[in-house]
Amino acid sequence: MKIAILGYGNIGKAAEEAIKAAPDMQLAGIYHHNDCLDCIDADVVLVCTPTREMQKFATVLAARGICTVDSFDIHGQIWSLRSSLDAVCQANHAVSILSAGWDPGTDSMVRALLMAMSPKGLTYTNFGPGRSMGHTVAAKAIKGVKNALSMTIPLGTGIHRRMVYIELEDGADFKTVEAAILADDYFAHDETHVIAVDSVDALNNVAHGVNLVRSGVSGETHNQRFEFNMTINNPALTGQVMVSCARAAMRMKERGEFGAKTMIELRPIDLLPGSTEQNIKALV
Amino acid sequence: MKIAILGYGNIGKAAEEAIKAAPDMQLAGIYHHNDCLDCIDADVVLVCTPTREMQKFATVLAARGICTVDSFDIHGQIWSLRSSLDAVCQANHAVSILSAGWDPGTDSMVRALLMAMSPKGLTYTNFGPGRSMGHTVAAKAIKGVKNALSMTIPLGTGIHRRMVYIELEDGADFKTVEAAILADDYFAHDETHVIAVDSVDALNNVAHGVNLVRSGVSGETHNQRFEFNMTINNPALTGQVMVSCARAAMRMKERGEFGAKTMIELRPIDLLPGSTEQNIKALV
Repeated sequence: MKIAILGYGNIGKAAEEAIKAAPDMQLAGIYHHNDCLDCIDADVVLVCTPTREMQKFATVLAARGICTVDSFDIHGQIWSLRSSLDAVCQANHAVSILSAGWDPGTDSMVRALLMAMSPKGLTYTNFGPGRSMGHTVAAKAIKGVKNALSMTIPLGTGIHRRMVYIELEDGADFKTVEAAILADDYFAHDETHVIAVDSVDALNNVAHGVNLVRSGVSGETHNQRFEFNMTINNPALTGQVMVSCARAAMRMKERGEFGAKTMIELRPIDLLPGSTEQNIKALV
Repeated sequence: MKIAILGYGNIGKAAEEAIKAAPDMQLAGIYHHNDCLDCIDADVVLVCTPTREMQKFATVLAARGICTVDSFDIHGQIWSLRSSLDAVCQANHAVSILSAGWDPGTDSMVRALLMAMSPKGLTYTNFGPGRSMGHTVAAKAIKGVKNALSMTIPLGTGIHRRMVYIELEDGADFKTVEAAILADDYFAHDETHVIAVDSVDALNNVAHGVNLVRSGVSGETHNQRFEFNMTINNPALTGQVMVSCARAAMRMKERGEFGAKTMIELRPIDLLPGSTEQNIKALV
């Protein structure tokens, strides 16, 4: 299958590596966000542009019947994005996999699985410590910010602190920039600290992690305890998950299962190369 | 949806509790393995008989177009079971979910997900300490064994010790019984110790657990580390997973997706009550 990349930042570069490492894929080109979309010839396009720009690209591609995968990461807007793209995909026989990263993404699949294992109870998703790509991009977009790094610090029970390190542009006022960051929807709901530094580059590290815990009830039995941990290179994992989802998109399109889907709507086996028999024998 | 239970041991009883706790299910009856299968009126039957007896029941029910869920747990025989049942299900418009427990089952879904996140690397599934239901049933079936308990002890890197506590029948020879246990396919591949005790009942505890670890490569990035842990009541979790899979079976049948499937072939969202919108908003 031929996979193209649209947008060539951290995630686009990681996706390129994952495509090249896949036994069943061929890189069909790397496109910048201002390239002509009509020139793209691919089975699936990985939309690796910033989250807030991806919908227009995915819509144009789906209208041409081309499958897309994105890692849209604003949790509260996923359902409306899915509703909008689903109609375009259904009408044009395309599959669009939304929010294909690790959260939203693979963590969502783990959360769904834990709900199926213990329908009553509490799940806490604790992120980091690590650099949030979405929050970093959002901070960089604020007027007066030359460079930024947003670190996510887990405080337990799903509560997080955001540590935002910024380099100011010449003449920018720290208090004005700080207020704009604190008012942004990415930061408005968490304890956030903005710190001016001389060099953001000196702090940069794409390590990240999660500690996802659930204590729940199976049937009438309480104290069922579950925990999912990872420590990972963030863009490398996101790029890899997008590439695995490109495979699922192709398989769904081949079966005539058109539409826009989130990862909890995907079969895990569709993410993997190899036959059904090979994967069942190796993994079940 | 109407869900019946066939077989009323540890798992059947746990499944009954999970059905009663489900907001969208009704218990359609509890049947013993020597009851008349033609009398069963249900959308889905949970086959909670011992692993080695389930295939005949699932086959008869699938031939009547009734969906089934089982927790068949002999890993090496799942593919051939699936091949055999799939043909019956396809011909009679039924769905049969195989090996719906926690391993095989939900652990299989986690292993598949970790492969999608880091295609190269090693996964180790470490079980216990805890009572293995499949191994306990296998030990109890050995001639001369009055009662048995098989404990699984994790030794790391997926290596396990089996501690088999047995009460002998009057006149049974320990050495003969021990040799029969050690030769059984359930025990032949692991370090196994057989210990005669006065009372198995005094040792019984259905707690179990898993520590599933993977260190892998995403794209070209090494040292991606993942860990899934749980400590659980074993039959309660197995019964709950079977009940969640009954829901998935119904949804697949309604969509015309007939056949025999393992859990890595299921969409996580199909395991959950509620609408697509509710689940995406709550979990993605």
